[in-house]
Amino acid sequence: MDAIEVQYPMNGGHGPYSYVQNSSYQKGVVDAARDVIFQVVAEKLDLGNPCFDSSNPFRIADLGCSTGPNTFFAMQNVVEAVKLKYQSIPQTSPEFLVFFNDHTDNDFNVLFRSLPHNTGASPGYFAAGVPGSLLFPKNTFHFLHSSYALQWLSKVPKEVLDRDSPAWNKGKIHYTGSDEHVTKAFFGQFQKDMDGFLKARAQEMVGGGLMLIQLPGIRNGGLFSQTGAGMIHFILGSCLVEMAKMGYTTEEKVDTFNVPQYHPLIEDLEMVVDMNKCFTIEKAGVLFTLRTESFLYFHFLDTIHFLSFSLFRSFPYSVFSLFVSFWHNLNFYAWSWFLTSRAFILSDFHEIRIFTFARKYSGCSRCS
Amino acid sequence: MDAIEVQYPMNGGHGPYSYVQNSSYQKGVVDAARDVIFQVVAEKLDLGNPCFDSSNPFRIADLGCSTGPNTFFAMQNVVEAVKLKYQSIPQTSPEFLVFFNDHTDNDFNVLFRSLPHNTGASPGYFAAGVPGSLLFPKNTFHFLHSSYALQWLSKVPKEVLDRDSPAWNKGKIHYTGSDEHVTKAFFGQFQKDMDGFLKARAQEMVGGGLMLIQLPGIRNGGLFSQTGAGMIHFILGSCLVEMAKMGYTTEEKVDTFNVPQYHPLIEDLEMVVDMNKCFTIEKAGVLFTLRTESFLYFHFLDTIHFLSFSLFRSFPYSVFSLFVSFWHNLNFYAWSWFLTSRAFILSDFHEIRIFTFARKYSGCSRCS
Repeated sequence: MDAIEVQYPMNGGHGPYSYVQNSSYQKGVVDAARDVIFQVVAEKLDLGNPCFDSSNPFRIADLGCSTGPNTFFAMQNVVEAVKLKYQSIPQTSPEFLVFFNDHTDNDFNVLFRSLPHNTGASPGYFAAGVPGSLLFPKNTFHFLHSSYALQWLSKVPKEVLDRDSPAWNKGKIHYTGSDEHVTKAFFGQFQKDMDGFLKARAQEMVGGGLMLIQLPGIRNGGLFSQTGAGMIHFILGSCLVEMAKMGYTTEEKVDTFNVPQYHPLIEDLEMVVDMNKCFTIEKAGVLFTLRTESFLYFHFLDTIHFLSFSLFRSFPYSVFSLFVSFWHNLNFYAWSWFLTSRAFILSDFHEIRIFTFARKYSGCSRCS
Repeated sequence: MDAIEVQYPMNGGHGPYSYVQNSSYQKGVVDAARDVIFQVVAEKLDLGNPCFDSSNPFRIADLGCSTGPNTFFAMQNVVEAVKLKYQSIPQTSPEFLVFFNDHTDNDFNVLFRSLPHNTGASPGYFAAGVPGSLLFPKNTFHFLHSSYALQWLSKVPKEVLDRDSPAWNKGKIHYTGSDEHVTKAFFGQFQKDMDGFLKARAQEMVGGGLMLIQLPGIRNGGLFSQTGAGMIHFILGSCLVEMAKMGYTTEEKVDTFNVPQYHPLIEDLEMVVDMNKCFTIEKAGVLFTLRTESFLYFHFLDTIHFLSFSLFRSFPYSVFSLFVSFWHNLNFYAWSWFLTSRAFILSDFHEIRIFTFARKYSGCSRCS
């Protein structure tokens, strides 16, 4: 099925459903990570490494940057942290070059036009955009950053769309609330994606380079179905099944739609990194758990928007309109209240985790 | 007057007035330059230079790339030429990294989505986009390329819009057919722009790096007003003056509109490069003169489209519609025939010139 290979970048433009207008939650993640970035750079970045020669620019990439402005705040944090570290050693600070990376279909026009450079500011770095899977020349990057992006899978695992597979995910749009075969299929895809991701990044990074990843996950022992995000996936799936029964859409359409997202356990990530062998986990921690009501409220607004957009792509417009109408007009406040209050009770299972990986020194001709 | 500072990138998208659909002439320039690129790389590129260490990627930029696909053909030519040169020496070919550069308002979305990488092709280089004036880290580029872009000035020179200046360009939209004060004002702007351009590029290029520039110009002793391009600027200006008399627009609007373009004499460029002192001219030649009728026809189609777009930005839509209607419906074929036949007679004054500049070795800590 070709459809599952299609890219789903965040919504472009500046309109009411754009990422620019609907990413206050993701901004919260970037802000919360600021102190960790400074700490990680101070403790773990080895500027004595010959690949950090300050006559060459210090190269950073933000993977899954979307359209801004969150990525600009994140990159500012990284650049400031590295400059501060250079002040503590007898070496001139290098120039900085930031590569903004996302899907080819990401709205790079909006990203470029809102770069801080265009407002007369001097953000202290040069900027470039890179579309696609960012396979870049060897030993390019000194620091990689990815915030709230790697929970997205490259595609829906095939098994969950296959009627003959025990992992067929009939009547659901995600692994939440599904049986273990479905969860395993999603984890399998996450494992493949992360392994491929780490291998590619290992090629692109200098030995000793650092990578900082922030992504939502659940703590070991927790269940995704008990988290707010899990609940919303489950409830939206139920709505669609009901709509199919009412004739607004078909069962087949519901069965072939799945949200390509996996929220890993800590042990999931550790397992992938161990098997991959290119990186070491230098630091792992919880950035925050979803505890505050207002934060949750914004979270669910974003989630609702995302799901609406995905549905828009997968269903005929008429069905989508009905769905949006149903959601926004009839039940929006009720659902928001319900979700907020339920998720508030269960929230400590759902965490935003932050990981620092260091690229091992093997494989880099200049550093090994 | 702020309006003159506004960017005018080529038209984005894939529509009937897009650059993608109206750049066959520019494609002709790129194709004609292919052999010169191979020759210049073979003769002038010094791969023994320490800055051309093949453990680092060979970095190229296309300045004024617009939306494609011409830029992809041009970059393919450069990459192939450099790879061929590496085959002739006992050194492994490096990886290649191409930076596509144009105004921030250029349609990078169209550019990125049409990259050859997306069609499953392996063009042999990694790609990034750079918006704006491309001030990049020192010693970044090994090869710079710019095709049919540098005739565009950064802005209309102030003097030609100033009623109190002897260079006030009343009743005309370009220096063609105007007196020498106007021509001098346009040349002054070209001189400033080129000087700034060369200084910035000298910072960004490695010592010994090459820059290949293709731009339309006139041969020493020629007059721009006698070329096809000069004629079309003059005739369009006259049309607008007539339209102002007929009340379709105002005299003031015509007087404040000028096409920010300068087609240099060879001696103009030589003077700027000599004064600038960062580069040497390694090779200069005529890529072609406008002799073939079919080529001219395409040329004027493009020119007509460009001018229509500029007018669209500068005049109210209603006036623009009238103008387009007047142009396309009443006189299009007559004008085309007239311009083609006239310009055919005069065409050998209008040349596409190609220059190869080498970055001098001073100022580069690694090369000097």
